[in-house]
Amino acid sequence: MNLSFFSDKITAALAQQRYGAAPEALYEPIRYIMALGGKRIRPLLTLLGAHLFTDDLDPILKPAIGTEVFHNFTLLHDDIMDQAPLRRGQPTVHEKWNANVAILSGDVMLVRAYELFLGVRPELLATVLRKFSQTAAEVCEGQQWDMLFEKDEQVSIAQYLDMIRLKTAVLLGFCLELGALLGGASAEAADHLRQFGTDIGLAFQLRDDLLDVYGDAATFGKRVGGDIVSDKKTFLLLTAQAQANAEQRATLARHIGQPTDNAEAKVQAVRAVYDELHIRPQTEALINQYFQDALHHLERVPVAAERKEPLRQLALQLMEREN
Amino acid sequence: MNLSFFSDKITAALAQQRYGAAPEALYEPIRYIMALGGKRIRPLLTLLGAHLFTDDLDPILKPAIGTEVFHNFTLLHDDIMDQAPLRRGQPTVHEKWNANVAILSGDVMLVRAYELFLGVRPELLATVLRKFSQTAAEVCEGQQWDMLFEKDEQVSIAQYLDMIRLKTAVLLGFCLELGALLGGASAEAADHLRQFGTDIGLAFQLRDDLLDVYGDAATFGKRVGGDIVSDKKTFLLLTAQAQANAEQRATLARHIGQPTDNAEAKVQAVRAVYDELHIRPQTEALINQYFQDALHHLERVPVAAERKEPLRQLALQLMEREN
Repeated sequence: MNLSFFSDKITAALAQQRYGAAPEALYEPIRYIMALGGKRIRPLLTLLGAHLFTDDLDPILKPAIGTEVFHNFTLLHDDIMDQAPLRRGQPTVHEKWNANVAILSGDVMLVRAYELFLGVRPELLATVLRKFSQTAAEVCEGQQWDMLFEKDEQVSIAQYLDMIRLKTAVLLGFCLELGALLGGASAEAADHLRQFGTDIGLAFQLRDDLLDVYGDAATFGKRVGGDIVSDKKTFLLLTAQAQANAEQRATLARHIGQPTDNAEAKVQAVRAVYDELHIRPQTEALINQYFQDALHHLERVPVAAERKEPLRQLALQLMEREN
Repeated sequence: MNLSFFSDKITAALAQQRYGAAPEALYEPIRYIMALGGKRIRPLLTLLGAHLFTDDLDPILKPAIGTEVFHNFTLLHDDIMDQAPLRRGQPTVHEKWNANVAILSGDVMLVRAYELFLGVRPELLATVLRKFSQTAAEVCEGQQWDMLFEKDEQVSIAQYLDMIRLKTAVLLGFCLELGALLGGASAEAADHLRQFGTDIGLAFQLRDDLLDVYGDAATFGKRVGGDIVSDKKTFLLLTAQAQANAEQRATLARHIGQPTDNAEAKVQAVRAVYDELHIRPQTEALINQYFQDALHHLERVPVAAERKEPLRQLALQLMEREN
């Protein structure tokens, strides 16, 4: 069974999903953001996590969609906070409507996400909702750290990795654990899958940091160097700052956090420091380490290797993606 | 047993409640808004609803606190949308911190509210969470209608009553139903209590509209006439507009929605029209009608009258309140 088998199920379930009728101003933004697309990685992970243990995927679809609704809720509110004008190339909800609509539609999306979990087997409901709630709070904590780091002078690499773990990775871990539990996994197997997902999530976010600087403009989809232009404290920048000699430190200080009317020159200067310090291979090494840790956890899940194939395939795609 | 017995339990439970540690910028605003006080009507209704059927209130406390956390989440986000500078006489969260903090702290409060319900008996969990989720979505719908009505030229009295039902009343109904179900009520008895709570909620909100115009400045706590100054389409204004003769209509049109540098004169002119049209006794009659409907539902709950005494007492307090 290849990945498109699972993707198609998710696409069909999303197309059938209803969020509410009136007032239109509350529910239309939800339909809008859910229709913007995306890779649907989270529900895919839930289905693949369940598929390891069962062929009966229909009961998994609603909770899987719940993870996607939750993820889009976080995008909707994050876009307000980040004052982002575009999401997947289209106007963000707060731009197309206004911030109040975006706050309130986001709130009701979080409620709908919870509702999508309510059909799980009664004996699993409290466990699933406790894990989801903890994950949801951690995602909020990650977003708050991310905003705090924008202003902080000093952010350590450990703090940064913990931030991306909370903001991005724990949700991927939850999606897999959710699928595993609903598919009938033991608590131990589900926990290995959670750790697999978290490690993949960390690798995924570091890949994002890397693509921003070293991606191919033709395939990346966003402007290459955007993180550098906006002075974002990524793994690359924090590592460079930690390893720079006096001269390199001065170059970075001349560009990062300073106004510029030549963004291209800024990107080139910072990237030149990265190149001197071998930041790219260092980042690739860390990505690979997380990826190997992830595979190690997958190996310890006691099911036949062939059932793990779609999940391994997805993980590989996420590691090798160019956008 | 008098009301303070129940209030004291809630105060103690709220004092023990923890919301999270780090980042401080995420959790301190939650502790702040929860410490601003208020009448704690919602958890009180939940305890009183349970008390009709059981003396074992300890398992009810966490879900009861959940209703208060949810209510304060809605206040936090509503205050951003309404750009309110003060809440219970203190700076609102978005004023004291900023809008981003208020959005994100509110989000995590909604998650914490759900978590507080997760300890209910497994056989009731899905039912309770379905009812809570429906209520939460309705509260968002009510807030969206409220914002839409600010811009709408024409709002009918029926639309207004439906808006306050969604925004305020359904949550009071849910709080009672929740308590009843957790206390062991039949579905039918719990439903009567829900309707009791919804009717009390409608009466409560209309009392709010009335106090704004006819309250005693010394006891009201807010500036009397604030709704008139801000052109708020309350039950009083909509009724007056519906019943006004040509001259009264012209008086209202001269003041409502028009800039003024004499707020006091505006309040007096609009109130004079209200007086001519007997808006006060009409509003009191509707409040009383909802109150009687509420009591009718309470009567149909099959428990001894003396157990209903604290609930009847609270309802009466809410009807007779001066602030």
